Amino acid sequence: MSGKIICAGLGPGAPDLLSVRADRVIRNAPYIAYFRKAGHMGQARQIVDAMLMPDVIEYPMEYPVTTELPVSSIAYRHALAEFYDQWADRLADMARTQEIVVLCEGDPFFYGSFMHLYIRLQERASLEVIPGITGMTGCWNAIGTPMTWGDDVLAVLTGTMQEADLIRHMQTADALVVMKTGRNLPKICRALTHAGRLQDAWLVERGTMPNQKIMRLAEADPNNCPYFATVLVHGQGRRPDFERKGK
Amino acid sequence: MSGKIICAGLGPGAPDLLSVRADRVIRNAPYIAYFRKAGHMGQARQIVDAMLMPDVIEYPMEYPVTTELPVSSIAYRHALAEFYDQWADRLADMARTQEIVVLCEGDPFFYGSFMHLYIRLQERASLEVIPGITGMTGCWNAIGTPMTWGDDVLAVLTGTMQEADLIRHMQTADALVVMKTGRNLPKICRALTHAGRLQDAWLVERGTMPNQKIMRLAEADPNNCPYFATVLVHGQGRRPDFERKGK
Repeated sequence: MSGKIICAGLGPGAPDLLSVRADRVIRNAPYIAYFRKAGHMGQARQIVDAMLMPDVIEYPMEYPVTTELPVSSIAYRHALAEFYDQWADRLADMARTQEIVVLCEGDPFFYGSFMHLYIRLQERASLEVIPGITGMTGCWNAIGTPMTWGDDVLAVLTGTMQEADLIRHMQTADALVVMKTGRNLPKICRALTHAGRLQDAWLVERGTMPNQKIMRLAEADPNNCPYFATVLVHGQGRRPDFERKGK
Repeated sequence: MSGKIICAGLGPGAPDLLSVRADRVIRNAPYIAYFRKAGHMGQARQIVDAMLMPDVIEYPMEYPVTTELPVSSIAYRHALAEFYDQWADRLADMARTQEIVVLCEGDPFFYGSFMHLYIRLQERASLEVIPGITGMTGCWNAIGTPMTWGDDVLAVLTGTMQEADLIRHMQTADALVVMKTGRNLPKICRALTHAGRLQDAWLVERGTMPNQKIMRLAEADPNNCPYFATVLVHGQGRRPDFERKGK
Protein backbone atom coordinates (compact mmCIF):
# COMPACT_ATOMS: atom_id res chain seq x y z
CA MET A 1 0.00 0.00 0.00
CA SER A 2 1.55 3.31 -1.03
CA GLY A 3 -1.61 5.44 -1.09
CA LYS A 4 -3.83 6.56 1.72
CA ILE A 5 -7.07 8.22 2.73
CA ILE A 6 -6.82 11.54 4.51
CA CYS A 7 -9.99 12.91 6.06
CA ALA A 8 -9.66 16.66 6.42
CA GLY A 9 -11.90 18.43 8.94
CA LEU A 10 -13.08 21.67 7.34
CA GLY A 11 -14.24 23.52 10.44
CA PRO A 12 -17.43 25.59 10.75
CA GLY A 13 -17.55 27.14 7.28
CA ALA A 14 -15.18 30.07 6.79
CA PRO A 15 -12.38 28.87 4.48
CA ASP A 16 -9.64 30.49 6.60
CA LEU A 17 -10.83 28.58 9.67
CA LEU A 18 -9.45 25.33 8.26
CA SER A 19 -6.29 24.23 10.05
CA VAL A 20 -2.99 24.98 8.36
CA ARG A 21 -2.54 21.20 7.97
CA ALA A 22 -5.91 20.65 6.29
CA ASP A 23 -5.43 23.70 4.08
CA ARG A 24 -2.09 22.40 2.81
CA VAL A 25 -3.41 18.89 2.16
CA ILE A 26 -6.44 20.14 0.22
CA ARG A 27 -4.47 22.61 -1.91
CA ASN A 28 -2.19 19.75 -3.01
CA ALA A 29 -4.85 17.07 -3.39
CA PRO A 30 -5.07 15.34 -6.79
CA TYR A 31 -8.23 13.46 -5.67
CA ILE A 32 -10.99 14.63 -3.37
CA ALA A 33 -14.21 12.98 -2.20
CA TYR A 34 -17.09 14.53 -0.29
CA PHE A 35 -20.66 13.80 0.77
CA ARG A 36 -23.54 15.75 -0.66
CA LYS A 37 -27.24 15.63 -1.30
CA ALA A 38 -27.97 14.81 -4.96
CA GLY A 39 -28.55 17.94 -6.99
CA HIS A 40 -26.62 20.18 -4.60
CA MET A 41 -23.00 21.37 -4.68
CA GLY A 42 -22.68 20.46 -1.03
CA GLN A 43 -21.42 22.55 1.88
CA ALA A 44 -18.05 20.75 2.13
CA ARG A 45 -17.25 21.24 -1.55
CA GLN A 46 -18.29 24.87 -1.35
CA ILE A 47 -15.94 25.67 1.54
CA VAL A 48 -12.88 24.52 -0.44
CA ASP A 49 -14.01 25.98 -3.76
CA ALA A 50 -11.16 28.51 -4.08
CA MET A 51 -8.48 26.09 -2.83
CA LEU A 52 -8.55 23.21 -5.30
CA MET A 53 -5.96 22.41 -7.96
CA PRO A 54 -7.31 23.11 -11.47
CA ASP A 55 -6.96 19.45 -12.48
CA VAL A 56 -8.30 17.92 -9.27
CA ILE A 57 -10.44 14.81 -9.78
CA GLU A 58 -13.63 14.86 -7.71
CA TYR A 59 -15.76 12.07 -6.27
CA PRO A 60 -19.06 13.42 -4.98
CA MET A 61 -20.59 10.80 -2.69
CA GLU A 62 -24.31 11.43 -3.04
CA TYR A 63 -26.59 10.21 -0.27
CA PRO A 64 -29.14 7.81 -1.77
CA VAL A 65 -31.76 9.19 0.61
CA THR A 66 -31.96 12.12 3.04
CA THR A 67 -35.37 13.14 4.33
CA GLU A 68 -37.56 11.00 2.02
CA LEU A 69 -37.63 8.11 4.52
CA PRO A 70 -37.76 8.12 8.34
CA VAL A 71 -34.26 7.72 9.84
CA SER A 72 -35.50 4.83 11.96
CA SER A 73 -36.95 2.83 9.05
CA ILE A 74 -35.29 -0.36 7.83
CA ALA A 75 -35.35 0.90 4.25
CA TYR A 76 -33.41 4.02 5.25
CA ARG A 77 -30.86 1.99 7.16
CA HIS A 78 -30.33 -0.47 4.34
CA ALA A 79 -29.98 2.24 1.71
CA LEU A 80 -27.37 4.06 3.75
CA ALA A 81 -25.51 0.89 4.74
CA GLU A 82 -25.18 -0.12 1.10
CA PHE A 83 -24.07 3.39 0.20
CA TYR A 84 -21.33 3.43 2.84
CA ASP A 85 -20.28 -0.13 1.96
CA GLN A 86 -19.87 0.72 -1.71
CA TRP A 87 -17.91 3.90 -1.10
CA ALA A 88 -15.70 2.17 1.45
CA ASP A 89 -14.88 -0.49 -1.16
CA ARG A 90 -14.19 2.10 -3.80
CA LEU A 91 -12.01 4.29 -1.57
CA ALA A 92 -10.09 1.29 -0.23
CA ASP A 93 -9.38 0.25 -3.79
CA MET A 94 -8.19 3.72 -4.82
CA ALA A 95 -6.10 4.09 -1.66
CA ARG A 96 -3.91 1.16 -2.67
CA THR A 97 -2.01 3.44 -5.03
CA GLN A 98 -3.37 6.98 -4.59
CA GLU A 99 -3.79 9.60 -1.92
CA ILE A 100 -7.45 10.63 -1.62
CA VAL A 101 -8.61 13.52 0.54
CA VAL A 102 -12.10 13.15 2.01
CA LEU A 103 -13.64 16.48 2.99
CA CYS A 104 -15.66 16.63 6.20
CA GLU A 105 -17.41 19.67 7.67
CA GLY A 106 -16.57 20.51 11.28
CA ASP A 107 -14.52 17.84 13.03
CA PRO A 108 -14.59 14.36 11.44
CA PHE A 109 -15.09 12.51 14.76
CA PHE A 110 -17.92 14.71 16.03
CA TYR A 111 -21.27 13.63 14.51
CA GLY A 112 -19.69 13.31 11.05
CA SER A 113 -20.71 11.04 8.15
CA PHE A 114 -17.06 10.15 7.60
CA MET A 115 -17.15 7.94 10.71
CA HIS A 116 -19.33 5.46 8.80
CA LEU A 117 -16.54 5.09 6.24
CA TYR A 118 -13.84 5.13 8.91
CA ILE A 119 -15.15 2.07 10.72
CA ARG A 120 -15.45 0.23 7.41
CA LEU A 121 -11.93 1.18 6.27
CA GLN A 122 -10.00 0.24 9.40
CA GLU A 123 -7.31 -2.27 8.48
CA ARG A 124 -8.24 -2.01 4.81
CA ALA A 125 -6.46 1.27 4.04
CA SER A 126 -3.94 3.67 5.49
CA LEU A 127 -6.01 6.34 7.24
CA GLU A 128 -5.25 9.81 8.54
CA VAL A 129 -7.70 12.21 10.15
CA ILE A 130 -7.09 15.95 10.49
CA PRO A 131 -9.17 17.54 13.26
CA GLY A 132 -11.29 20.60 12.59
CA ILE A 133 -13.05 23.34 14.54
CA THR A 134 -16.47 21.90 15.36
CA GLY A 135 -19.55 23.63 13.99
CA MET A 136 -20.73 24.43 17.51
CA THR A 137 -17.44 26.22 18.27
CA GLY A 138 -17.99 28.34 15.16
CA CYS A 139 -21.53 29.10 16.38
CA TRP A 140 -20.59 30.30 19.84
CA ASN A 141 -17.81 32.42 18.38
CA ALA A 142 -20.26 33.91 15.90
CA ILE A 143 -22.49 35.01 18.80
CA GLY A 144 -19.44 36.57 20.46
CA THR A 145 -20.12 35.45 24.02
CA PRO A 146 -17.99 33.07 26.11
CA MET A 147 -19.61 29.61 26.18
CA THR A 148 -18.28 27.86 29.31
CA TRP A 149 -16.67 29.28 32.46
CA GLY A 150 -15.34 27.83 35.68
CA ASP A 151 -17.26 24.67 36.52
CA ASP A 152 -19.91 24.95 33.80
CA VAL A 153 -21.21 21.64 32.46
CA LEU A 154 -21.77 21.64 28.70
CA ALA A 155 -24.31 19.19 27.27
CA VAL A 156 -24.45 18.56 23.53
CA LEU A 157 -27.88 17.21 22.55
CA THR A 158 -29.65 16.32 19.32
CA GLY A 159 -33.09 17.50 18.33
CA THR A 160 -33.95 13.92 17.40
CA MET A 161 -33.96 12.92 21.10
CA GLN A 162 -37.13 12.30 23.10
CA GLU A 163 -38.61 15.46 24.61
CA ALA A 164 -38.35 14.13 28.17
CA ASP A 165 -34.64 13.39 27.71
CA LEU A 166 -34.05 16.84 26.28
CA ILE A 167 -35.75 18.43 29.29
CA ARG A 168 -33.74 16.38 31.77
CA HIS A 169 -30.40 17.44 30.26
CA MET A 170 -31.53 21.05 29.82
CA GLN A 171 -32.37 21.19 33.52
CA THR A 172 -29.07 19.75 34.76
CA ALA A 173 -26.43 21.21 32.42
CA ASP A 174 -25.27 24.83 32.41
CA ALA A 175 -24.31 25.41 28.78
CA LEU A 176 -26.33 23.71 26.02
CA VAL A 177 -25.87 22.92 22.35
CA VAL A 178 -28.64 21.25 20.35
CA MET A 179 -27.70 19.86 16.94
CA LYS A 180 -29.99 18.39 14.27
CA THR A 181 -32.70 20.99 14.68
CA GLY A 182 -34.83 21.42 11.49
CA ARG A 183 -38.25 19.87 11.96
CA ASN A 184 -37.39 19.16 15.59
CA LEU A 185 -37.33 22.86 16.51
CA PRO A 186 -40.87 23.03 17.96
CA LYS A 187 -39.99 20.11 20.29
CA ILE A 188 -36.69 21.77 21.24
CA CYS A 189 -38.51 25.02 22.04
CA ARG A 190 -41.07 23.20 24.21
CA ALA A 191 -38.28 21.43 26.11
CA LEU A 192 -36.34 24.68 26.65
CA THR A 193 -39.51 26.40 27.84
CA HIS A 194 -40.19 23.55 30.28
CA ALA A 195 -36.62 23.85 31.57
CA GLY A 196 -37.01 27.64 31.90
CA ARG A 197 -34.26 28.37 29.41
CA LEU A 198 -35.94 29.49 26.20
CA GLN A 199 -35.22 33.18 26.83
CA ASP A 200 -31.47 32.49 26.99
CA ALA A 201 -31.32 30.43 23.79
CA TRP A 202 -29.83 31.45 20.44
CA LEU A 203 -30.36 29.99 16.98
CA VAL A 204 -27.37 30.13 14.62
CA GLU A 205 -27.31 29.20 10.93
CA ARG A 206 -24.06 29.02 8.99
CA GLY A 207 -21.98 30.40 11.89
CA THR A 208 -18.71 32.09 10.73
CA MET A 209 -19.90 32.24 7.09
CA PRO A 210 -20.65 35.52 5.30
CA ASN A 211 -24.37 34.71 5.21
CA GLN A 212 -24.58 33.67 8.86
CA LYS A 213 -27.87 34.20 10.69
CA ILE A 214 -27.95 34.72 14.44
CA MET A 215 -31.14 35.30 16.37
CA ARG A 216 -32.77 34.80 19.73
CA LEU A 217 -34.56 31.46 19.52
CA ALA A 218 -37.67 32.98 21.08
CA GLU A 219 -37.89 35.27 18.06
CA ALA A 220 -37.37 32.53 15.43
CA ASP A 221 -40.07 30.76 13.46
CA PRO A 222 -39.97 27.20 14.86
CA ASN A 223 -41.67 25.83 11.75
CA ASN A 224 -39.04 27.12 9.34
CA CYS A 225 -35.61 25.98 10.43
CA PRO A 226 -32.86 24.27 8.41
CA TYR A 227 -31.57 20.93 9.72
CA PHE A 228 -28.05 22.23 10.28
CA ALA A 229 -28.99 25.25 12.36
CA THR A 230 -27.73 25.00 15.92
CA VAL A 231 -29.36 26.02 19.20
CA LEU A 232 -27.07 27.33 21.95
CA VAL A 233 -27.49 28.44 25.56
CA HIS A 234 -24.40 29.96 27.20
CA GLY A 235 -23.11 28.89 30.58
CA GLN A 236 -23.10 31.52 33.33
CA GLY A 237 -20.31 29.75 35.15
CA ARG A 238 -19.03 29.93 38.64
CA ARG A 239 -18.95 33.71 38.79
CA PRO A 240 -17.47 35.02 42.03
CA ASP A 241 -17.83 38.67 43.04
CA PHE A 242 -14.76 39.85 41.22
CA GLU A 243 -16.29 39.00 37.86
CA ARG A 244 -19.08 41.45 38.39
CA LYS A 245 -16.70 44.02 39.78
CA GLY A 246 -14.55 43.63 36.68
CA LYS A 247 -17.37 44.53 34.36
CA MET B 1 -9.19 54.04 18.16
CA SER B 2 -7.06 52.65 15.33
CA GLY B 3 -5.61 49.64 17.16
CA LYS B 4 -7.30 46.49 18.37
CA ILE B 5 -6.98 43.32 20.40
CA ILE B 6 -7.14 40.04 18.50
CA CYS B 7 -7.45 36.89 20.55
CA ALA B 8 -6.14 33.97 18.50
CA GLY B 9 -7.26 30.46 19.46
CA LEU B 10 -4.23 28.17 19.14
CA GLY B 11 -5.98 24.82 19.07
CA PRO B 12 -4.87 21.66 20.91
CA GLY B 13 -1.10 22.00 20.61
CA ALA B 14 0.29 21.03 17.20
CA PRO B 15 1.40 24.27 15.46
CA ASP B 16 -0.16 23.24 12.13
CA LEU B 17 -3.55 22.78 13.80
CA LEU B 18 -3.94 26.53 14.18
CA SER B 19 -6.47 27.96 11.75
CA VAL B 20 -5.12 29.63 8.63
CA ARG B 21 -6.52 32.90 9.99
CA ALA B 22 -4.79 32.63 13.38
CA ASP B 23 -1.55 31.50 11.74
CA ARG B 24 -1.50 34.55 9.48
CA VAL B 25 -2.28 36.98 12.31
CA ILE B 26 0.42 35.56 14.58
CA ARG B 27 3.11 35.51 11.89
CA ASN B 28 2.50 39.22 11.27
CA ALA B 29 2.04 40.30 14.89
CA PRO B 30 4.30 43.09 16.14
CA TYR B 31 2.93 42.62 19.71
CA ILE B 32 1.82 39.44 21.43
CA ALA B 33 0.53 38.75 24.94
CA TYR B 34 -0.08 35.41 26.61
CA PHE B 35 -0.81 33.89 30.01
CA ARG B 36 1.74 31.78 31.78
CA LYS B 37 2.80 30.53 35.18
CA ALA B 38 5.78 32.51 36.51
CA GLY B 39 9.05 30.77 35.76
CA HIS B 40 7.65 28.80 32.80
CA MET B 41 7.72 29.52 29.09
CA GLY B 42 4.04 28.67 28.91
CA GLN B 43 2.21 26.31 26.57
CA ALA B 44 0.71 29.07 24.40
CA ARG B 45 4.08 30.73 23.79
CA GLN B 46 5.64 27.37 23.03
CA ILE B 47 3.09 26.48 20.33
CA VAL B 48 3.89 29.64 18.32
CA ASP B 49 7.64 29.53 18.93
CA ALA B 50 8.63 28.99 15.29
CA MET B 51 6.07 31.46 13.93
CA LEU B 52 6.97 34.79 15.52
CA MET B 53 8.60 37.76 13.81
CA PRO B 54 12.20 38.24 14.99
CA ASP B 55 11.46 41.66 16.45
CA VAL B 56 8.11 40.80 18.06
CA ILE B 57 7.49 42.48 21.42
CA GLU B 58 6.14 40.08 24.03
CA TYR B 59 3.94 40.63 27.06
CA PRO B 60 3.87 37.53 29.25
CA MET B 61 0.90 37.82 31.62
CA GLU B 62 2.05 35.84 34.65
CA TYR B 63 -0.64 34.50 36.97
CA PRO B 64 -0.02 35.92 40.47
CA VAL B 65 -1.11 32.59 41.96
CA THR B 66 -1.91 29.12 40.56
CA THR B 67 -2.10 26.22 43.01
CA GLU B 68 -0.73 27.95 46.12
CA LEU B 69 -4.20 29.00 47.30
CA PRO B 70 -7.54 27.19 47.08
CA VAL B 71 -9.54 28.34 44.04
CA SER B 72 -12.53 29.04 46.28
CA SER B 73 -10.63 31.28 48.73
CA ILE B 74 -11.23 35.03 48.81
CA ALA B 75 -7.48 35.68 48.62
CA TYR B 76 -7.27 33.70 45.36
CA ARG B 77 -10.22 35.50 43.86
CA HIS B 78 -8.92 38.93 44.79
CA ALA B 79 -5.43 38.22 43.47
CA LEU B 80 -6.80 37.06 40.13
CA ALA B 81 -9.36 39.84 39.87
CA GLU B 82 -6.66 42.44 40.37
CA PHE B 83 -4.45 40.65 37.85
CA TYR B 84 -7.16 40.64 35.17
CA ASP B 85 -8.12 44.25 35.97
CA GLN B 86 -4.56 45.45 35.54
CA TRP B 87 -3.97 43.59 32.28
CA ALA B 88 -7.31 44.72 30.90
CA ASP B 89 -6.31 48.34 31.62
CA ARG B 90 -2.91 47.86 30.05
CA LEU B 91 -4.23 46.12 26.92
CA ALA B 92 -7.02 48.69 26.50
CA ASP B 93 -4.42 51.42 26.65
CA MET B 94 -2.14 49.72 24.10
CA ALA B 95 -5.08 48.94 21.80
CA ARG B 96 -5.80 52.64 21.29
CA THR B 97 -2.98 52.80 18.78
CA GLN B 98 -1.60 49.28 18.31
CA GLU B 99 -2.74 45.83 17.24
CA ILE B 100 -2.01 43.28 19.98
CA VAL B 101 -2.49 39.55 19.50
CA VAL B 102 -3.44 37.62 22.64
CA LEU B 103 -2.59 33.92 22.40
CA CYS B 104 -5.09 31.44 23.83
CA GLU B 105 -4.79 27.65 23.86
CA GLY B 106 -7.72 25.73 22.43
CA ASP B 107 -10.76 27.89 21.69
CA PRO B 108 -10.89 31.28 23.48
CA PHE B 109 -14.57 30.96 24.49
CA PHE B 110 -14.31 27.42 25.87
CA TYR B 111 -12.96 27.47 29.47
CA GLY B 112 -10.26 29.99 28.50
CA SER B 113 -8.56 32.62 30.68
CA PHE B 114 -9.00 35.17 27.93
CA MET B 115 -12.72 35.40 28.74
CA HIS B 116 -11.81 37.23 31.97
CA LEU B 117 -10.12 39.92 29.89
CA TYR B 118 -12.85 39.85 27.25
CA ILE B 119 -15.63 40.82 29.65
CA ARG B 120 -13.46 43.62 31.05
CA LEU B 121 -12.55 44.96 27.60
CA GLN B 122 -16.00 45.10 26.05
CA GLU B 123 -16.70 48.65 24.90
CA ARG B 124 -13.21 49.74 25.94
CA ALA B 125 -11.32 48.35 22.91
CA SER B 126 -11.91 46.95 19.46
CA LEU B 127 -11.97 43.17 19.95
CA GLU B 128 -11.69 40.24 17.55
CA VAL B 129 -11.70 36.55 18.49
CA ILE B 130 -10.43 33.79 16.21
CA PRO B 131 -11.88 30.37 17.08
CA GLY B 132 -9.60 27.39 17.62
CA ILE B 133 -9.87 23.61 17.75
CA THR B 134 -10.72 22.82 21.38
CA GLY B 135 -8.30 20.76 23.42
CA MET B 136 -10.89 17.98 23.79
CA THR B 137 -11.24 17.73 19.99
CA GLY B 138 -7.48 17.27 19.79
CA CYS B 139 -7.71 14.55 22.45
CA TRP B 140 -10.37 12.45 20.76
CA ASN B 141 -8.56 12.74 17.46
CA ALA B 142 -5.34 11.63 19.16
CA ILE B 143 -7.11 8.48 20.38
CA GLY B 144 -8.32 7.87 16.83
CA THR B 145 -11.88 6.81 17.64
CA PRO B 146 -15.09 8.63 16.69
CA MET B 147 -16.43 10.53 19.70
CA THR B 148 -20.16 11.03 19.05
CA TRP B 149 -22.57 9.23 16.72
CA GLY B 150 -26.25 9.44 15.93
CA ASP B 151 -28.13 10.64 19.01
CA ASP B 152 -25.20 10.50 21.44
CA VAL B 153 -25.28 13.08 24.22
CA LEU B 154 -21.88 14.56 25.04
CA ALA B 155 -21.33 15.98 28.53
CA VAL B 156 -18.29 18.12 29.26
CA LEU B 157 -17.54 18.09 32.99
CA THR B 158 -14.82 19.47 35.25
CA GLY B 159 -12.92 17.47 37.85
CA THR B 160 -13.55 20.28 40.33
CA MET B 161 -17.28 19.35 40.47
CA GLN B 162 -18.88 17.51 43.39
CA GLU B 163 -18.59 13.73 43.12
CA ALA B 164 -22.37 13.22 43.20
CA ASP B 165 -22.82 15.65 40.29
CA LEU B 166 -20.10 13.92 38.32
CA ILE B 167 -21.81 10.56 38.84
CA ARG B 168 -25.21 11.89 37.78
CA HIS B 169 -23.89 13.24 34.48
CA MET B 170 -21.74 10.17 33.86
CA GLN B 171 -24.84 8.00 34.20
CA THR B 172 -27.04 10.01 31.85
CA ALA B 173 -24.70 11.13 29.05
CA ASP B 174 -23.24 8.87 26.34
CA ALA B 175 -19.90 10.50 25.55
CA LEU B 176 -17.94 12.17 28.35
CA VAL B 177 -15.11 14.66 28.62
CA VAL B 178 -13.68 15.64 32.01
CA MET B 179 -11.41 18.69 32.10
CA LYS B 180 -9.37 20.03 35.05
CA THR B 181 -8.19 16.63 36.21
CA GLY B 182 -4.88 16.79 38.16
CA ARG B 183 -5.48 16.28 41.88
CA ASN B 184 -9.14 15.54 41.12
CA LEU B 185 -8.33 12.30 39.28
CA PRO B 186 -9.03 9.93 42.22
CA LYS B 187 -12.49 11.50 42.58
CA ILE B 188 -13.09 11.26 38.83
CA CYS B 189 -12.08 7.57 38.87
CA ARG B 190 -14.44 6.85 41.78
CA ALA B 191 -17.30 8.58 39.96
CA LEU B 192 -16.63 6.70 36.71
CA THR B 193 -16.47 3.41 38.62
CA HIS B 194 -19.78 4.21 40.32
CA ALA B 195 -21.32 4.93 36.90
CA GLY B 196 -19.87 1.70 35.49
CA ARG B 197 -17.73 3.51 32.92
CA LEU B 198 -14.15 3.37 34.18
CA GLN B 199 -13.18 0.58 31.78
CA ASP B 200 -14.16 2.69 28.77
CA ALA B 201 -12.26 5.79 29.87
CA TRP B 202 -9.06 7.21 28.38
CA LEU B 203 -6.57 9.68 29.81
CA VAL B 204 -4.86 11.98 27.31
CA GLU B 205 -2.02 14.40 28.00
CA ARG B 206 -0.84 16.88 25.36
CA GLY B 207 -3.09 15.42 22.65
CA THR B 208 -1.79 16.09 19.07
CA MET B 209 1.67 17.13 20.36
CA PRO B 210 4.82 15.07 19.67
CA ASN B 211 5.07 14.08 23.34
CA GLN B 212 1.39 13.14 23.70
CA LYS B 213 0.50 10.43 26.22
CA ILE B 214 -2.58 8.28 25.72
CA MET B 215 -3.57 5.54 28.12
CA ARG B 216 -6.55 3.67 29.49
CA LEU B 217 -7.57 5.54 32.62
CA ALA B 218 -7.82 2.25 34.54
CA GLU B 219 -4.08 1.79 33.94
CA ALA B 220 -3.07 5.33 34.95
CA ASP B 221 -1.72 6.40 38.34
CA PRO B 222 -4.55 8.54 39.76
CA ASN B 223 -2.16 10.28 42.16
CA ASN B 224 0.15 11.54 39.45
CA CYS B 225 -1.79 13.45 36.84
CA PRO B 226 -1.17 16.91 35.37
CA TYR B 227 -3.97 19.47 35.66
CA PHE B 228 -4.41 19.76 31.90
CA ALA B 229 -4.79 16.06 31.18
CA THR B 230 -8.24 15.18 29.85
CA VAL B 231 -10.44 12.16 30.55
CA LEU B 232 -12.63 10.92 27.69
CA VAL B 233 -15.28 8.23 27.24
CA HIS B 234 -16.51 7.67 23.68
CA GLY B 235 -20.15 7.51 22.75
CA GLN B 236 -21.44 4.24 21.27
CA GLY B 237 -24.25 6.02 19.51
CA ARG B 238 -27.45 4.86 17.99
CA ARG B 239 -25.95 1.88 16.16
CA PRO B 240 -28.44 0.05 14.02
CA ASP B 241 -27.68 -3.40 12.60
CA PHE B 242 -26.01 -2.14 9.47
CA GLU B 243 -23.17 -0.64 11.48
CA ARG B 244 -22.14 -4.04 12.75
CA LYS B 245 -22.58 -5.55 9.33
CA GLY B 246 -20.38 -2.83 7.90
CA LYS B 247 -17.48 -3.74 10.15
